[in-house]
Amino acid sequence: MKPVIVVHGGAGRIFKEREEGSRSGVRRAALRGYRILKCGGNALDAVEEAVAVMEDDPHFNAGCGSVLNEKGEVEMDAILMDGKNLASGAVSAVKCIANPIKLARLVMEKTDHMLLTDQGAFAFARAMGFPEVPGEKLITTRSLERWKKNLEADSNPQEFQKDLGTVGAVAIDSAGNVACATSTGGLTNKLVGRVGDTACIGSGGYADNSVGATSTTGHGESIMKVVLARLVLYHMEQGKSPEDAADIALDCMKTRVGGLGGVIVISRSGDWAARFSTKQMAWATVKDDLLQCGVYAGERHKESAEEALSTMGS
Amino acid sequence: MKPVIVVHGGAGRIFKEREEGSRSGVRRAALRGYRILKCGGNALDAVEEAVAVMEDDPHFNAGCGSVLNEKGEVEMDAILMDGKNLASGAVSAVKCIANPIKLARLVMEKTDHMLLTDQGAFAFARAMGFPEVPGEKLITTRSLERWKKNLEADSNPQEFQKDLGTVGAVAIDSAGNVACATSTGGLTNKLVGRVGDTACIGSGGYADNSVGATSTTGHGESIMKVVLARLVLYHMEQGKSPEDAADIALDCMKTRVGGLGGVIVISRSGDWAARFSTKQMAWATVKDDLLQCGVYAGERHKESAEEALSTMGS
Repeated sequence: MKPVIVVHGGAGRIFKEREEGSRSGVRRAALRGYRILKCGGNALDAVEEAVAVMEDDPHFNAGCGSVLNEKGEVEMDAILMDGKNLASGAVSAVKCIANPIKLARLVMEKTDHMLLTDQGAFAFARAMGFPEVPGEKLITTRSLERWKKNLEADSNPQEFQKDLGTVGAVAIDSAGNVACATSTGGLTNKLVGRVGDTACIGSGGYADNSVGATSTTGHGESIMKVVLARLVLYHMEQGKSPEDAADIALDCMKTRVGGLGGVIVISRSGDWAARFSTKQMAWATVKDDLLQCGVYAGERHKESAEEALSTMGS
Repeated sequence: MKPVIVVHGGAGRIFKEREEGSRSGVRRAALRGYRILKCGGNALDAVEEAVAVMEDDPHFNAGCGSVLNEKGEVEMDAILMDGKNLASGAVSAVKCIANPIKLARLVMEKTDHMLLTDQGAFAFARAMGFPEVPGEKLITTRSLERWKKNLEADSNPQEFQKDLGTVGAVAIDSAGNVACATSTGGLTNKLVGRVGDTACIGSGGYADNSVGATSTTGHGESIMKVVLARLVLYHMEQGKSPEDAADIALDCMKTRVGGLGGVIVISRSGDWAARFSTKQMAWATVKDDLLQCGVYAGERHKESAEEALSTMGS
């Protein structure tokens, strides 16, 4: 099996000034994950790495750069899942850590549980010696301005909630194992303690070697209502291609609950799709040493992954 | 449409001394929910009422009587879902409230979100004037003894984790709307902040008027791995009866991840099932004024719901 990775940097509305940063961010994340796969690494390590790269990139609504809750804090959700045995780890409403996806991995590997939340997740992180960061370190000028604007009397937070998604990755490794990972700062000006689709298995992501893997982005509450990630894979079980399965599931979400979003999908045979019902979604993929990325519907930049990797640095 | 309700009081191992309490508890919960349906009430109100009755009943692992986490505290998850519009409300890791299912209902009705967790859920409860109770009020002698026993050097908490499930209800009302509700104290001696299947839409429950509704119980992490509630409904979408869909989904969970559990199911035409792969599951149902309940596989006590209601009191 030839390894493949697909990543997304969130579906929604991406302003002109953020376009280039989003494009180069997903491109870099896909390459970093692909490098692991190329060296014989497994799908789980690759998706974790790709997502951690985007958590560290302030262009995305995850880790540093996350949107702020009603109190002006960064509060994050993350999940990853191993298609080999359906094992999964997730955290919800966590603060003061740079890489929620790495904490989710620890939940999967070091506990008998699958989801730890808020204070318990923080206590677990501390017990594991997981690095803490001051909450302010995760706040960017941009997210702070957005938050302040939303507190103004004539503001419309719902309008701004269209702007930013989530980050995610799916991959298949040379052994045929699939995995997914998703991480987010959630909705801007959300209530403290609001948990969205990302932490909920089947909504924010799902991976099963017998079908494939998917990671979702978009309006979290709508994604949850249709359990979007699992829905995509059900359609693939019924014989649909990743692209058709993604489109049918996204259409269902639009029709049933009026929600927009995007998904990245990989099948057990290595076919992939990056589809969205929003105006934009930053995505990138590497397959057969071909790197592709885009932000608008129909956009596909192509280049050699080999060359891109050689100039990327560490 | 004739209204129907099905409730469960948890799948697992029910000790002799708890059998009668469990049987009369689910019987009472089913009757209380049914009374609402019979008076023209809606499915959502009926399942909320049935679950609240079991939360107040110390025989069950939900509300008062919940098992304790590693620190000896009651920490609860709950969800409900309206099949009409796929709206849902849930809370995770909440403390010091008697009826998490009622707080989940408030999340659904009073916020734009679907899941609130831990400190944020508590702040929301307080802002809503939701009644608080001292944490100790939810702790029974039995749960305290179990917790202490599990802390002994030669204990085997995993063994005790087989004992107690969750409570749940599904219903269809005279307008043909379905709903589900699930509530739990989780796993005994769980880590602080552990969230199980109950709070995760598609795992702990799912309701969709175009198919039916289901509420799950059993080993939470296994239920999450297969997104059990949604899985049951997928099989019904493929034309399976509630009973067959439940059995196929439970068999999948056993085969794929070695997990045991139980489900209650109702279809959009009012057919129902209460199935489990564990040794026991307390369940009860009322349909066509016939009240049925059981604890062991194959057990079905039958009586007139009319008569039972007239002797039940308020």
